Amino acid sequence: MSFGMIATWRMAYEALCHQYDALVVGETAGNVLEAAVKEVEDFANFISVGYGGLPNEAGTVQLDAAFMDGTTWEFGAVAALEDIANPITVARLLSKERFNSMRVGAGAREYALKKGFKAQNMLSPAAEALWQERIEKVSQAELTPYDGHDTIGMVVLDRQAGMVAGTSSSGLFMKENGRVGDSPLAGSGLYVDHEIGGATATGLGEDLTKGILSYETVRRMGQGMSPMEAAQSALHEFEVKLKRKYGKAGAMSLICLNPAGEWGIATNVEFTFVVADSDNPPKIYMAKPVSDTAGKVLIEEPSQAWLTDYLSNVNFRTE
Amino acid sequence: MSFGMIATWRMAYEALCHQYDALVVGETAGNVLEAAVKEVEDFANFISVGYGGLPNEAGTVQLDAAFMDGTTWEFGAVAALEDIANPITVARLLSKERFNSMRVGAGAREYALKKGFKAQNMLSPAAEALWQERIEKVSQAELTPYDGHDTIGMVVLDRQAGMVAGTSSSGLFMKENGRVGDSPLAGSGLYVDHEIGGATATGLGEDLTKGILSYETVRRMGQGMSPMEAAQSALHEFEVKLKRKYGKAGAMSLICLNPAGEWGIATNVEFTFVVADSDNPPKIYMAKPVSDTAGKVLIEEPSQAWLTDYLSNVNFRTE
Repeated sequence: MSFGMIATWRMAYEALCHQYDALVVGETAGNVLEAAVKEVEDFANFISVGYGGLPNEAGTVQLDAAFMDGTTWEFGAVAALEDIANPITVARLLSKERFNSMRVGAGAREYALKKGFKAQNMLSPAAEALWQERIEKVSQAELTPYDGHDTIGMVVLDRQAGMVAGTSSSGLFMKENGRVGDSPLAGSGLYVDHEIGGATATGLGEDLTKGILSYETVRRMGQGMSPMEAAQSALHEFEVKLKRKYGKAGAMSLICLNPAGEWGIATNVEFTFVVADSDNPPKIYMAKPVSDTAGKVLIEEPSQAWLTDYLSNVNFRTE
Repeated sequence: MSFGMIATWRMAYEALCHQYDALVVGETAGNVLEAAVKEVEDFANFISVGYGGLPNEAGTVQLDAAFMDGTTWEFGAVAALEDIANPITVARLLSKERFNSMRVGAGAREYALKKGFKAQNMLSPAAEALWQERIEKVSQAELTPYDGHDTIGMVVLDRQAGMVAGTSSSGLFMKENGRVGDSPLAGSGLYVDHEIGGATATGLGEDLTKGILSYETVRRMGQGMSPMEAAQSALHEFEVKLKRKYGKAGAMSLICLNPAGEWGIATNVEFTFVVADSDNPPKIYMAKPVSDTAGKVLIEEPSQAWLTDYLSNVNFRTE
């Protein structure tokens, strides 16, 4: 059977590499996804997910995550979760609950503590420094969203034809207390049906929440579109309509995967992603929108200069 | 121009009657919807919305609401909001924000207080009594969701062809702290595009959240289906699939309206709703699913006995 995985952003690369062998030998999609997202959450130098994630305007890290099983349609999510290291694991645990499977704020934290998670400070020294710097800048200018939209989103297909989707994010940098983006929302942030495929989104949550793009991408695959066609037409049509109705559209990107292991992506900004399939271990790609093509993108390998620059920014060696 | 309004449950009747004249003389859909939902929220004897809403297992009332403008695609939502009387108004205010337009938990409360809302106890004596009674029962048996699924959901079309959708709910009775259902979620709880139509859902939020049924109903209307056909086919196909994948499906109901003022409903349980259009003031209907008809429903006027029984239960005179 085909298998594969796709994830948003360059930051997913090491985690996908570490999980690829497990997928090859038949590990379940759920376990692979959870382990990979956890690794990204735990790495302090990724400043948009888990520990080390950028805080809200009050200096508190509030995390959003969701997990959906495409076979059983179990779904769990957390939003504005504080003090807990692995929101993806909390979301997956919640997906096993018949009731109360989406929990927010203090209630999400309460659930995690009850399940044995330890409360811990999620604000890394580096994230705190960036926050203090931003506070000073914001006092002079208007709040703008964090430059980038770096939710980790992932879809995994295993050898048993299982499919799952998951997301994890610290949300908009400098967001207000309790702000929730698209990441933990079924339909917007993620959606998966193992008979059709799965998708996740990343970008400006306030816009993505109106587009229901993960659901729409999966739905279009179900109508016979290729993953690439499904994601690109869904994003393009929504962006055109959003600009017409709302007057503007923020950054939005989508990844998707079908049960044959074929994948697709769509984006209206420069966007990196990582993909692996039965024949190819994880590889980093960069996508750029092509003007006047109704959503088509140029996909290429990032340049050595880009990769080197990325590594020096993320500074893997300092952890 | 055609105009119309449709709302979930018998409880919407008086509020729709009070707003009908405003709609006739050209009031905007947004103002009509907000005023009507506020009236339902404020009435203490409706035990599933606003003041008097049933509390969570800790005895705290936590409210969910959302507002979407079908013309501008402004969207705002709150979840697990405590101590604030009119979540629909908070959601509508949030819909004007470019960023941070969905707020949950303490952050949602903080936003409302900043906007001038006064903190107040939302637990009515009657709701507290029901909660204490349930606590005793739950100590003997397993938690079950509250019998009924009484989110107020509403879609309004005004004479200027504006359309809005809104929801407000205290969620599952005895829910855990921070639990969020479908009501505040775009796509699941509500969706509206003034060129196509609007829809809202009510029922077991955990199931509705997986179905994205409000979005799907609107999408089907956009494909040329009548509102009735759109809602019923969407709900039926989702229910069949959910039972196959998840093994069970809870109560689910949908209302929808198109720009011609034509309406539709779908339900898998006995369900009352209220509807008005250019030619007819608000009227209460009852819908019942018909077995083996792929989602068809029988719609009739509720019996006098049912209406009398309802009024004596709600006990309008004691407020």
